[in-house]
Amino acid sequence: MRSDGRAADELRPINFERDFTDSADGSVLVSFGRTRVLCTASIEADVPRWLKGKGEGWVTAEYSMLPGSSPERVNREAARGRQSGRTQEIQRLIGRSLRSVTNLALLGERQVICDCDVLQADGGTRTAAISGAYVALHDALSRLKTSGEIVAHPLVEACAAVSVGIINGIACLDLPYSEDVAAEVDMNVVKTQAGCFVEVQGTAEGKPFSRDRLDELLELATSGIDQIIGLQTQVLAEPPPLR
Amino acid sequence: MRSDGRAADELRPINFERDFTDSADGSVLVSFGRTRVLCTASIEADVPRWLKGKGEGWVTAEYSMLPGSSPERVNREAARGRQSGRTQEIQRLIGRSLRSVTNLALLGERQVICDCDVLQADGGTRTAAISGAYVALHDALSRLKTSGEIVAHPLVEACAAVSVGIINGIACLDLPYSEDVAAEVDMNVVKTQAGCFVEVQGTAEGKPFSRDRLDELLELATSGIDQIIGLQTQVLAEPPPLR
Amino acid sequence: MRSDGRAADELRPINFERDFTDSADGSVLVSFGRTRVLCTASIEADVPRWLKGKGEGWVTAEYSMLPGSSPERVNREAARGRQSGRTQEIQRLIGRSLRSVTNLALLGERQVICDCDVLQADGGTRTAAISGAYVALHDALSRLKTSGEIVAHPLVEACAAVSVGIINGIACLDLPYSEDVAAEVDMNVVKTQAGCFVEVQGTAEGKPFSRDRLDELLELATSGIDQIIGLQTQVLAEPPPLR
Amino acid sequence: MRSDGRAADELRPINFERDFTDSADGSVLVSFGRTRVLCTASIEADVPRWLKGKGEGWVTAEYSMLPGSSPERVNREAARGRQSGRTQEIQRLIGRSLRSVTNLALLGERQVICDCDVLQADGGTRTAAISGAYVALHDALSRLKTSGEIVAHPLVEACAAVSVGIINGIACLDLPYSEDVAAEVDMNVVKTQAGCFVEVQGTAEGKPFSRDRLDELLELATSGIDQIIGLQTQVLAEPPPLR
Amino acid sequence: MRSDGRAADELRPINFERDFTDSADGSVLVSFGRTRVLCTASIEADVPRWLKGKGEGWVTAEYSMLPGSSPERVNREAARGRQSGRTQEIQRLIGRSLRSVTNLALLGERQVICDCDVLQADGGTRTAAISGAYVALHDALSRLKTSGEIVAHPLVEACAAVSVGIINGIACLDLPYSEDVAAEVDMNVVKTQAGCFVEVQGTAEGKPFSRDRLDELLELATSGIDQIIGLQTQVLAEPPPLR
Amino acid sequence: MRSDGRAADELRPINFERDFTDSADGSVLVSFGRTRVLCTASIEADVPRWLKGKGEGWVTAEYSMLPGSSPERVNREAARGRQSGRTQEIQRLIGRSLRSVTNLALLGERQVICDCDVLQADGGTRTAAISGAYVALHDALSRLKTSGEIVAHPLVEACAAVSVGIINGIACLDLPYSEDVAAEVDMNVVKTQAGCFVEVQGTAEGKPFSRDRLDELLELATSGIDQIIGLQTQVLAEPPPLR
Repeated sequence: MRSDGRAADELRPINFERDFTDSADGSVLVSFGRTRVLCTASIEADVPRWLKGKGEGWVTAEYSMLPGSSPERVNREAARGRQSGRTQEIQRLIGRSLRSVTNLALLGERQVICDCDVLQADGGTRTAAISGAYVALHDALSRLKTSGEIVAHPLVEACAAVSVGIINGIACLDLPYSEDVAAEVDMNVVKTQAGCFVEVQGTAEGKPFSRDRLDELLELATSGIDQIIGLQTQVLAEPPPLR
Repeated sequence: MRSDGRAADELRPINFERDFTDSADGSVLVSFGRTRVLCTASIEADVPRWLKGKGEGWVTAEYSMLPGSSPERVNREAARGRQSGRTQEIQRLIGRSLRSVTNLALLGERQVICDCDVLQADGGTRTAAISGAYVALHDALSRLKTSGEIVAHPLVEACAAVSVGIINGIACLDLPYSEDVAAEVDMNVVKTQAGCFVEVQGTAEGKPFSRDRLDELLELATSGIDQIIGLQTQVLAEPPPLR
Repeated sequence: MRSDGRAADELRPINFERDFTDSADGSVLVSFGRTRVLCTASIEADVPRWLKGKGEGWVTAEYSMLPGSSPERVNREAARGRQSGRTQEIQRLIGRSLRSVTNLALLGERQVICDCDVLQADGGTRTAAISGAYVALHDALSRLKTSGEIVAHPLVEACAAVSVGIINGIACLDLPYSEDVAAEVDMNVVKTQAGCFVEVQGTAEGKPFSRDRLDELLELATSGIDQIIGLQTQVLAEPPPLR
Repeated sequence: MRSDGRAADELRPINFERDFTDSADGSVLVSFGRTRVLCTASIEADVPRWLKGKGEGWVTAEYSMLPGSSPERVNREAARGRQSGRTQEIQRLIGRSLRSVTNLALLGERQVICDCDVLQADGGTRTAAISGAYVALHDALSRLKTSGEIVAHPLVEACAAVSVGIINGIACLDLPYSEDVAAEVDMNVVKTQAGCFVEVQGTAEGKPFSRDRLDELLELATSGIDQIIGLQTQVLAEPPPLR
Repeated sequence: MRSDGRAADELRPINFERDFTDSADGSVLVSFGRTRVLCTASIEADVPRWLKGKGEGWVTAEYSMLPGSSPERVNREAARGRQSGRTQEIQRLIGRSLRSVTNLALLGERQVICDCDVLQADGGTRTAAISGAYVALHDALSRLKTSGEIVAHPLVEACAAVSVGIINGIACLDLPYSEDVAAEVDMNVVKTQAGCFVEVQGTAEGKPFSRDRLDELLELATSGIDQIIGLQTQVLAEPPPLR
Repeated sequence: MRSDGRAADELRPINFERDFTDSADGSVLVSFGRTRVLCTASIEADVPRWLKGKGEGWVTAEYSMLPGSSPERVNREAARGRQSGRTQEIQRLIGRSLRSVTNLALLGERQVICDCDVLQADGGTRTAAISGAYVALHDALSRLKTSGEIVAHPLVEACAAVSVGIINGIACLDLPYSEDVAAEVDMNVVKTQAGCFVEVQGTAEGKPFSRDRLDELLELATSGIDQIIGLQTQVLAEPPPLR
């Protein structure tokens, strides 16, 4: 049994609080246990320069950890004057994941920026961000469709993400911070509703891992993602409230 | 009557949600109407270099608006690579205000950083931030005292802030965004429980203002701050929960 | 009596040396005692992007302290790669003050940049800068009018600024550096010829101040500003020399 | 058959030119077909601050593309003033990969920086960089051992990397640029001599991929990496020339 | 006799390896003894903004030292976030030198960027860069002419550069690093095939030098440059291979 | 005859105004005709890190053009966030020139920073800066000697600089801006009182120049520098006033 009492293949309590704020087009406060990320989706009537005139849209993401989100305060990247390599790596991953389930032609020449700001960090912030940003993006695009600006919803199917890892030789699902720092292998997996992979990022922390371990982790991630997509589907069953 | 139905001398509904997150030493989600700011206070066992060895502590603040906090998305300062003049002006104001009611010698050689991150912006973000950061700072220092690390609470008295302005010739209290952009005069006032001034910042937007107008605005601000300090006192009557 | 022999309500010797340099459209070396600031006004045939096509102009300001302006050398901001929060705060204040007395429609689609570079710093650099930049701006616009490019002078009335503060319990006018660092309260006031306020910025350094103190300081500032505006008027009575 | 005549499971010609330069402790010009990366390993008698006093060393990497390495010139990151997210992602990957096969305790309090500068880019620059940097690092550490500064060689086993992808529905090994941009799935795999995984990074470009595809790609990568490790072993059979 | 056995007026072995890479329009690996610089010339169908519409082209240069090019590793300027003063000075010198022998009108509205990346540094990197970049630029423009995009070759005559200096009172030609750091006077000279000067940059390191010394150094540089131009001419006698 | 009526070998009126400001240890406002540069020398009780513990001092320089110093306003480098290549080149030149006549061992472990801020620019700003900074540095060091902190004056002999150039085929001394932009050859020369060269920087603008031209320019520069050193000597004959 794990320090928080979960079984190895058990997710933390997961929650999507829709319209946590009301200024962005979509806004979701997602929780994976104590990890909480505010995901907003803002639609802009413009695309990056290299896309202009092609009749297609773009979806991108930005990520940050609020300084007070960790017991040891995180330096503010705006004060330091640049984003860390880790931040850039994570925001590129979130953007790629969301684009993989978006029909950019249906979006038209618009850009959606999904901002994922971590209010409280306890491991798995990038996977919570992807899972929550999907819901925020869905709400933003639903409102765009309701207002008649697009004719079909550009999201093709759901996607969600979870972390898995080997802790003391045991494959575990959805790692909190205390497990994350102790993991021998750390893997983030992004999958779609249809069961296909969008991203697989496995890293040996300290010692390389065998093919059997890899397979075991992929199974575990799949079961977790299926459950998260179930929760997303439930939340999105009802359309977002009008504004 | 104002667009949101308030009288000219009426505050918006104000709320302090304590321990909204639990990683920082103090954490308050403050709301002034639709404006919501997450204020966290993080204590570090170190002071800035120029204070080392003097037996005194320091209180400072950082401020930002989350990109999704406004209907028109705000560019992320970390991505742009620097903080705007407005951001720096506001975080200096918050820091000065908090220091004015802190006994830095009682704090010992520690630094408290108060991070004020605006989750939703509807005018008055700097005054909400000061009022909320005071409560977060109070909680952080109460915990430090409970743990026996300091012998007396370094906060000398409460402080709070509010905005006032002239809209269509009428002095109004606690301006939302729609009034803020239309104001002829815009003033931010920070006062203490004892009724003294910490900061007075009045700016003519467009046309200079008379001494009578100035007096009228100071009266209005005073009545608002008294009420806010009343709410802070009520919230802080109970000590922060142990962790 | 004060360290430099002045009465509490006495200004330092103030001087405006017109056309100290001859490359910018207006150029004034202003002295408030030992504080000397070179203020130049440069007219550009272009406005910031967000103003294009509106038929209006813009007035803005930049501020810096030359490294050798203080006994303890000031680091060069260009070498450090960014302007400090203090610098940005001051240049925003100068810009707002000058715009408050400028009819931007009369200016047409032009931008005037007022550069205030402190050659010698002895307290009150921002108030000297505002007072001197007003004269430089006036000269630049007079030349623009003489050349027939605008039909009316866009400056509506004079504005000037002064610092006041409480030193050892006594309200004093126009603080030199040695008083500035010892002040319990520090206030910068910008007013117009008609006696209205453009900016009031009062800060408790250390201990909050009462309403009576605030009133006392505002009176003192008013008397100082009236004298400075008198000097500006005298200097500007004669039109700037042709070039 | 592929555009360059290779079979789907065939590597490009791979070459390691040892001591291409002689200033760094190790220096290898690695070629994967037309892709050429200069990998140097520089040993410094110091570790990053957070490692000081722990008796352990560190291995890190930096990566860049020379501006003339591509037909369309690549902007110089030093001129732009910052490294792109892609650059940071790649250099973090190279560093992690090399550390996974290094015994940092045997290295002692030293840092080795592996610089991977792409002289010519034709796809697979990051996998060529990992494979070449391993050889440069091995040579640098062999020299350190020969000089008697360390008692045992800190590299535990070989590691190498290769890219694989799905092109027109077919799993292909070691993609050149023309295939890389057309790939539906793009995967980079880093493995060790013992056949374990160090990193697996698979990304759906456009459309998500099934578990079967994932397995197929992992097999293909494994066969390629085994061959590359064979070449590394052959090159390293002879010790590096004395200097 | 010098540490490397050369006479005072003898060049190091000089070599131009054409088309060392094949992605840029021109590419030369130049060696002056152990100093090796990769010079590439990339033609862009665009000019800097201030040249647009004038019917003329531009030639510019960028310079860097690879981190592993020196026994003591050189910090990567892209990681530090800015180019040093030395780097900027050198790349401005290379650009000016190349432009002095280019007919910019014949080039048309195109920009050629010559990137000089030092793979191995042993003194004289800037003079090797100028001499090698001339050959790379010549090849790039020859290909442009062959393809019919320009009617005449824009290079008017050859140019090359060499360093000279006073070591232990003796004027020496083409200094390696060990001599460079010991030189009393250090001079870089750029000349053309017709024997005219493009740049003369002489610097007293430690003690000022007489007019006689200056004349002696200019003679020595002239003899070296004549030989280098001879080598360039030989290399360029054959047109660059078609691609 | 030249546009300002001077003979080809005639200097502009040159003036050194000592103690133009009184905060830095030395302060000189130097004029070369309309070009005016404020040169201050600030002594710091510390040396750069790489010099610590060697018992020697350091002299360095910083340079900038005030935005209002030119008819077309110069962008402020602090606002842009970095110094241009030209600025860095000039400040490195000033520093090298001053160090060439300073006995750094006599200075002890101190750093003198010479700030050269151009108040009005009309060509020759770098040569005016060198000539003026020499006087400011001399005054600063004289005061240090008077105060007994050093036993001997560290300046070994005077140095000064002037620009020369070829305008319409004629060699001219001390170029104003209008000549500078029209010059075919532009040369800056720094010499010492003993008639030796510290720096020679000649650049062909447009067309390379012959050895005869070079000799002619060196003669002209020498005659100008001799006169400037005469003026410096005259100014420095009297010790700087006590403070």
